[in-house]
Amino acid sequence: MPSSPDFLANLRLAADGWSVEILDQTVLPHELRRVTLADWPAAAEAIVTMQVRGAPLIGVTAAYGLALALRTDPSDAHLELAAKGLLQTRPTAVNLRWALEAMLAHVRPLPPAERTAAAYGLAAQLAEEDRATNHAIGQAGLEIFRALAAAKPSGEPLQVMTHCNAGSLATLGWGTATAPMYLAKAAGLPIHVWVSETRPRNQGAALTAWELGQAGIPLTVIADNAAGHLMQRGLVDIVVVGADRVTSTGDAANKIGTYLKALAAHAHRIPFYVACPGTTIDWTIADGLAEIPIEQRSAREVTHQVGRLPSGARGEVQLTPDATAARNDGFDVTPARYITGLITERGVCPATTVGLRGLYPVELKR
Amino acid sequence: MPSSPDFLANLRLAADGWSVEILDQTVLPHELRRVTLADWPAAAEAIVTMQVRGAPLIGVTAAYGLALALRTDPSDAHLELAAKGLLQTRPTAVNLRWALEAMLAHVRPLPPAERTAAAYGLAAQLAEEDRATNHAIGQAGLEIFRALAAAKPSGEPLQVMTHCNAGSLATLGWGTATAPMYLAKAAGLPIHVWVSETRPRNQGAALTAWELGQAGIPLTVIADNAAGHLMQRGLVDIVVVGADRVTSTGDAANKIGTYLKALAAHAHRIPFYVACPGTTIDWTIADGLAEIPIEQRSAREVTHQVGRLPSGARGEVQLTPDATAARNDGFDVTPARYITGLITERGVCPATTVGLRGLYPVELKR
Repeated sequence: MPSSPDFLANLRLAADGWSVEILDQTVLPHELRRVTLADWPAAAEAIVTMQVRGAPLIGVTAAYGLALALRTDPSDAHLELAAKGLLQTRPTAVNLRWALEAMLAHVRPLPPAERTAAAYGLAAQLAEEDRATNHAIGQAGLEIFRALAAAKPSGEPLQVMTHCNAGSLATLGWGTATAPMYLAKAAGLPIHVWVSETRPRNQGAALTAWELGQAGIPLTVIADNAAGHLMQRGLVDIVVVGADRVTSTGDAANKIGTYLKALAAHAHRIPFYVACPGTTIDWTIADGLAEIPIEQRSAREVTHQVGRLPSGARGEVQLTPDATAARNDGFDVTPARYITGLITERGVCPATTVGLRGLYPVELKR
Repeated sequence: MPSSPDFLANLRLAADGWSVEILDQTVLPHELRRVTLADWPAAAEAIVTMQVRGAPLIGVTAAYGLALALRTDPSDAHLELAAKGLLQTRPTAVNLRWALEAMLAHVRPLPPAERTAAAYGLAAQLAEEDRATNHAIGQAGLEIFRALAAAKPSGEPLQVMTHCNAGSLATLGWGTATAPMYLAKAAGLPIHVWVSETRPRNQGAALTAWELGQAGIPLTVIADNAAGHLMQRGLVDIVVVGADRVTSTGDAANKIGTYLKALAAHAHRIPFYVACPGTTIDWTIADGLAEIPIEQRSAREVTHQVGRLPSGARGEVQLTPDATAARNDGFDVTPARYITGLITERGVCPATTVGLRGLYPVELKR
């Protein structure tokens, strides 16, 4: 078990105390490359190129980006310029906007000379809040793991399945879906994780397999196609996934393929949980199928596959005949009725409006 | 629409009238390479290396392999040697054993001088029988397509989903699951096919996409993960897959991932059909989950991906971190209750013992 929730060091202050060191996620799992961000354009570039990814991590990266900008020039003009530039990196990322607005509200009223320190302070606080949120999700999930493990023959590991990477890499701290896994490891509760590769971008095979492996958690990568078969054969005790957005009624949008796992879990009465911080809940929408837009991504992600060549270099192979049409929906929506519960930083609740309101009587600002 | 059911020429007699020309399926879809088999070891090698694949095609290849052996030396000793060598190529392939036993029973009683002609004659007959079987499956499936198309707004293509390659490439003739698609094209019934890539070996992306494309049938390749999402959004009218083995009760073993599609089709009341010749039915077993062994294949198929490099050469990329465990179940079993019907050369029947016995009162010998 890693001793720190930031054991991957996917974002940290460098030894100089002010520049920001990130882990370049575009070259994982085959290369461990750290990049130092010394000004705000570098932070923006890291977000654009997806060297950092995952909504919480993007938000904190942008916050530090603004701190870097103020260190260079704390004037109003430079502050607004940097904020605008950072916001444009991923225009649809809600956490990015939220983090930048929080930073601006915090530093705008201050005299320029005080802004840099205040910005670093708030960026660190945002990171710490994300760690605390994920730890609380982990604790709530761990209780579910314990209850399921108690029903198994002594010594047999709890068989957990996950999809994509709702992991430490995507956040500060233990991740969301992965948080109960790390805390189970720390608590000595034996688990084994089925990691579905998550075509077309393979975040499971590349990122989740890597980070769980770094922590010494036993795992096995499977083709996405195998999920139903393993559940049918009694080899899965629980499914835990993350979410990109959850409606006020408990419908959950997550990486494409999540819905097939939910259907299979339902058919085999296997608990299916969505781990998500309260900020993931979109109180303005009630019908996930009708109201959550599904991003259409490049066909090339389906027709080609990126990986490591025998030479060690990063490379790409084409899978389909030339000029073959492909469709690439980035996400799908799992209706609330297939979700056993939502694991949040305030505890576990049913995937219903009543359940969510029980934990969040006041809507969290995003 | 191709004019011949063997339009891909995946197995044919060469211009010399005796050697056998095959299409090397290991280099598809990126290269069209034909290989000439001039003796039985070459035929055995083509089966072992999977230059020919698909149960019916393997059977006919082995039959021609025996004819080639007899052409070289029609003695009893050479006949038995070649039969044994051909059988060992894929020891679990039922069609292979069946074809070789039929050939042996046919030629053993004959004087050596008559054996070669008789062997070529029976091999051609086995090929012709497979063509006829697949054409009949296609006609039965086409009636289902017509009925579903009639319920759609005029001019909209019928949306068909398939998995893996139960195609012309795997058989002589039009294939099994693909046969109704080719006959729909010939009949002017507009269809569009969702081809799921079928990780880990990508027979959908590489083979089904190629052969349907050769015939000019509109298709779109998707990640396996997208199947549930497309069904949920009303974009699929019917699912048709093949089968490796069907129990006397209608359970069907097929390529891993088939079961997830069946569950999703069931959830959305989309017809889910299994196209299979009567020889696929295993009358000796009634419980697919308990009695059909699932082949465990190499982990490397999951951890790596083969395709075409930008240079045009065939290459492989690694997807997972080094030394990551992977599990690779080759097949899964779809229980009969999720199967709308079985499409056979004798027509369509429910996936039940009563349904199967209605079409096959006498068990087909394998």
